[in-house]
Amino acid sequence: MKTIGALVFEGFELLDLYGPLEFFNMLEDDYKVRIVAEGTDPVQSNRKGPCTVVDDPISAGTAYDILLIPGGHGTRREVENDALLGWIRDAHEKAEWTSSVCSGSALLAKSGILDGRKATSNKSAFAWVMSQGPNVDWQPKARWTEDGDIFTSSGVSAGMDMALALIAADLGVEAAEKVALWGEYHWQRDPSDDPFAVHHGLA
Amino acid sequence: MKTIGALVFEGFELLDLYGPLEFFNMLEDDYKVRIVAEGTDPVQSNRKGPCTVVDDPISAGTAYDILLIPGGHGTRREVENDALLGWIRDAHEKAEWTSSVCSGSALLAKSGILDGRKATSNKSAFAWVMSQGPNVDWQPKARWTEDGDIFTSSGVSAGMDMALALIAADLGVEAAEKVALWGEYHWQRDPSDDPFAVHHGLA
Repeated sequence: MKTIGALVFEGFELLDLYGPLEFFNMLEDDYKVRIVAEGTDPVQSNRKGPCTVVDDPISAGTAYDILLIPGGHGTRREVENDALLGWIRDAHEKAEWTSSVCSGSALLAKSGILDGRKATSNKSAFAWVMSQGPNVDWQPKARWTEDGDIFTSSGVSAGMDMALALIAADLGVEAAEKVALWGEYHWQRDPSDDPFAVHHGLA
Repeated sequence: MKTIGALVFEGFELLDLYGPLEFFNMLEDDYKVRIVAEGTDPVQSNRKGPCTVVDDPISAGTAYDILLIPGGHGTRREVENDALLGWIRDAHEKAEWTSSVCSGSALLAKSGILDGRKATSNKSAFAWVMSQGPNVDWQPKARWTEDGDIFTSSGVSAGMDMALALIAADLGVEAAEKVALWGEYHWQRDPSDDPFAVHHGLA
């Protein structure tokens, strides 16, 4: 049984978090999900959306096997949050896999753990995200990227395709296919197929 | 500004709820999301997953413009919950649109509001869902259905395609296309394209 540490912060994007968590949560014999935040109060999603209950504060220093870092407008504030960036570095060291969705890669980049690694982000905020990590090997045209133990995805719904790729890397492709079937999900399996990069003039 | 009343109950399926809510939430000038439950305590998702904070108890009798009813294993219990079924009937009367995802249509069916209407559900539990509404015009091969003011979707991720169709019906197709682009989402726009029905021998 592996534990997913899924970070939330004020202004996280709902589907960045819950798309991947749906797939991990379906494999209840393999994964257990914990919601992690700086504090212990419920955390509100982007645009004053629904609030999520927190399981663990970052101060607990809990080790997770897989990290999931969502994006959302809150990342604009959190890239200046040294406590959170320090937690990301520390939790990444302890983890087997680290993953981000959308502008969550700005937080990974700013923490330094993406230096020299391939990474991507959502296409509408790509320039800003790149500015958070000048030494990252940014991939503008990518549904998601895999580089060693770090997965990063493009915007919002791309996190679900990435999560299935991560499950395939962790448990085997049959597990990912089973989950996609249960979720009646059309898994886009080619990480280089990214029409949204073309739309935004990035490819 | 229209209000979405999104029901949660112990054992709701994460993506059934948060996939559609992501898209409604993106249109913050048009929609406001409220999480509704029988009680006021946070509600845990399927397989002891993450917990969601409740905004309104059903006892408040609040009117919503759009209802969203997710599925999940909890529906097996809630089809016997007369208070909840009564709330669904009442809230549907007050609403402009009523929608369900996955086995959420079992709750709509048992409440009686689907009688004589087209509806669908997830394909792995289709026989059970049908048994909750013998007078419903069940559609085994459908990504989603639209019949008057009621939308129902197939399993889990199908709710996102349905939500975009509902937004298109409510605000126009340009609004739905804008949201899909922001979410880097490949909107499956043909409601009759349902390979999962074929997989389960239902078509």
